[in-house]
Amino acid sequence: MLTGNCVVAQSGGPTAVINNSLGGVIEAALGSEAIKEVYGARHGVLGILREDFCDLRREDPASIQGLRYTPGAALGSCRYQLKNQEDYDRLLDIFRRYNIRYFFYIGGNDSMDTAAKVNRLALEEGYDLRVIGIPKTIDNDLPQTDHCPGYGSAAKYLATSVLEMGLDLKCIVTSTKVAIVETMGRNTGWLAAATALARRRPGDAPHYIYLPEVAFDMAAFLADVERAYRQYGTALVVVSEGLVDKNGNYVFNDAATVDVFGHQRLGGLGQFLLNKIERELNLKGRVILPATSQRSAMHLASRTDAEEAWAVGRVAVEAAVKGASGQMVAIRRLEGDTYQVTYELVDLDQVANKEKKLPRAWINEQGNDVTDHFINYVRPLIQGEVSIPFPNGLPAYVNLACHPVKDPD
Amino acid sequence: MLTGNCVVAQSGGPTAVINNSLGGVIEAALGSEAIKEVYGARHGVLGILREDFCDLRREDPASIQGLRYTPGAALGSCRYQLKNQEDYDRLLDIFRRYNIRYFFYIGGNDSMDTAAKVNRLALEEGYDLRVIGIPKTIDNDLPQTDHCPGYGSAAKYLATSVLEMGLDLKCIVTSTKVAIVETMGRNTGWLAAATALARRRPGDAPHYIYLPEVAFDMAAFLADVERAYRQYGTALVVVSEGLVDKNGNYVFNDAATVDVFGHQRLGGLGQFLLNKIERELNLKGRVILPATSQRSAMHLASRTDAEEAWAVGRVAVEAAVKGASGQMVAIRRLEGDTYQVTYELVDLDQVANKEKKLPRAWINEQGNDVTDHFINYVRPLIQGEVSIPFPNGLPAYVNLACHPVKDPD
Repeated sequence: MLTGNCVVAQSGGPTAVINNSLGGVIEAALGSEAIKEVYGARHGVLGILREDFCDLRREDPASIQGLRYTPGAALGSCRYQLKNQEDYDRLLDIFRRYNIRYFFYIGGNDSMDTAAKVNRLALEEGYDLRVIGIPKTIDNDLPQTDHCPGYGSAAKYLATSVLEMGLDLKCIVTSTKVAIVETMGRNTGWLAAATALARRRPGDAPHYIYLPEVAFDMAAFLADVERAYRQYGTALVVVSEGLVDKNGNYVFNDAATVDVFGHQRLGGLGQFLLNKIERELNLKGRVILPATSQRSAMHLASRTDAEEAWAVGRVAVEAAVKGASGQMVAIRRLEGDTYQVTYELVDLDQVANKEKKLPRAWINEQGNDVTDHFINYVRPLIQGEVSIPFPNGLPAYVNLACHPVKDPD
Repeated sequence: MLTGNCVVAQSGGPTAVINNSLGGVIEAALGSEAIKEVYGARHGVLGILREDFCDLRREDPASIQGLRYTPGAALGSCRYQLKNQEDYDRLLDIFRRYNIRYFFYIGGNDSMDTAAKVNRLALEEGYDLRVIGIPKTIDNDLPQTDHCPGYGSAAKYLATSVLEMGLDLKCIVTSTKVAIVETMGRNTGWLAAATALARRRPGDAPHYIYLPEVAFDMAAFLADVERAYRQYGTALVVVSEGLVDKNGNYVFNDAATVDVFGHQRLGGLGQFLLNKIERELNLKGRVILPATSQRSAMHLASRTDAEEAWAVGRVAVEAAVKGASGQMVAIRRLEGDTYQVTYELVDLDQVANKEKKLPRAWINEQGNDVTDHFINYVRPLIQGEVSIPFPNGLPAYVNLACHPVKDPD
């Protein structure tokens, strides 16, 4: 049994349930005989390089449990990638000095790459270290796992919001006939696709959904909007922010919209498409931009997602203590009518820097909607609600005390 | 006792709880001896002019109860104002033919004006009719009432969302340093102001709040954003969509942003301000545009608000049956430490076409935040949550069957 200290860190854009994975790691690490001190690095690998550690053993157990319903990365996150050999050497040196033998990294594709490299370096240097990646992304684009913790909650929030926006749009006879909901999803359409769950009856919003997986055609898009408007009186369409045309170029390129005076910039893809609709179809509309609410709206998180996020954290620790390293915890969906999952380990190299797109078979032929295959895939992921205390009308999200760890030297 | 039929209609932008007021009217009307048939007009006064009525007696009682947790206007709404004497005459003629003796209109300033005019016309024509207005608006801008049903829920949703967006923004070390949340509120700042509730500790978002009640100064705004960024590492500011400069002109005028080719339009006030920040302060940021979620997010409504919205519907019927007409139900807050309200009637003429702004004393001297006076005013309005069935991971919002009413002739 490898004994020593552990460090856990969070990376990339947060999700509603990223702290569940942190909680799962802490709970399992505190209960493990192999793991002595439980450190949290603030702001991902940056916190390791800066030796900015919290002593998680000293946290109030109520705060640890509060991670079950607290959004944002409680330890802080970063978008920093280790740049060069110097960074990696420094990281391993710090691990040595703090006797860190277990490294748990909660993140997406980039973070899995970092974890893989740290694992390789430790092997090369003969430093006994266990590195386990813990998947996290609302984008749901990690390969080798049925889905990613964080996605189910974002899907539930978006589907509910689009259901509500649809009721709003259709109930009022007014000049606003079109609503464009722009979701996150630069390279994959998992988030936009999930809004299909909002439909209960024929004619319900969203009327069409556009994904980066399918080349966007402006003429077809405008025809869709006009058709929905003629059929239902209003048109609500959902677009993933990273739509591309048949040449693979972004339909709306944020960087290219400053005019010669540098004085103007359009409001993003949604506004760009709305301008087209207003001009070509003479229909008034509005853009809805949920932005970071998609990854922070814990108030409407999926209990299934939160519980799985906690579980992947626990499983990471248990696997590492048993000797695993250089792997990521993946979720496998079991066959059968009832949704059930099991957790398994996959090689970090199989995940690092790779992206899983929506299978073409889960998108309709016209490329403006999803199929029932996708609905069957996503529906189990949004089941259940997370119970959150609302002591004064607002959710009582917790803060970690983050007691600093002293330099061992 | 005036016996006859009643009609209820919904008008203007919906709120999360506008259907609570409808439910209160239906419940009280069904229980009243004076009221025979209970009709709902589809899409406000338009439904009356079109004789498009639903027979609400035939609705499933479970659907009526479901109005407690269903957003959007269940009868449909409109932004139609009766245009001319012909419209009014026609309306009264229809009331006569359907023996409608009670008219309940759920809406904002414009709708109270319509209700007042209908009431006056009936008096002039000697047609015995009782007209009661039922306040509804997330804008909270109706005079003569402590607050408006719909506002508390929008306030709770916005405050919770800004709390979550703030946790998101500050946790991640990335290039995005600024978030601009653009709220509704064309002429008043009640919605933007409510986001101040999101703060729990010094330094919490929102860092500054800008309201239409105070002349906007771009230099001061940029200085505020820079100061927040220097102090806290990130800056989250909330702007009400209708900000005006010292001359009373909109800071961002949507209509004036089409270029000479008619090809460009900026994304709104938030995007306009973000462009300024990026150019002048060299800070990257993002715009968050909750748009219609502010008025439809029943999933995070205030129970206090929902219960009051139901109550004003009931009170309207009870008052009308007792003989009141030409009045609106208002909410009066009782003195004392515990929040308690009572309902009273105010003249429609005192409400019609008038707007209540945030008192200057509830805004700080610099005009970039609210004072504790406002916090004490708004906090009771967001208390409690509405229990919603989530049978399959999504809220089970109801639809009315809307059985049509036959023409009496």
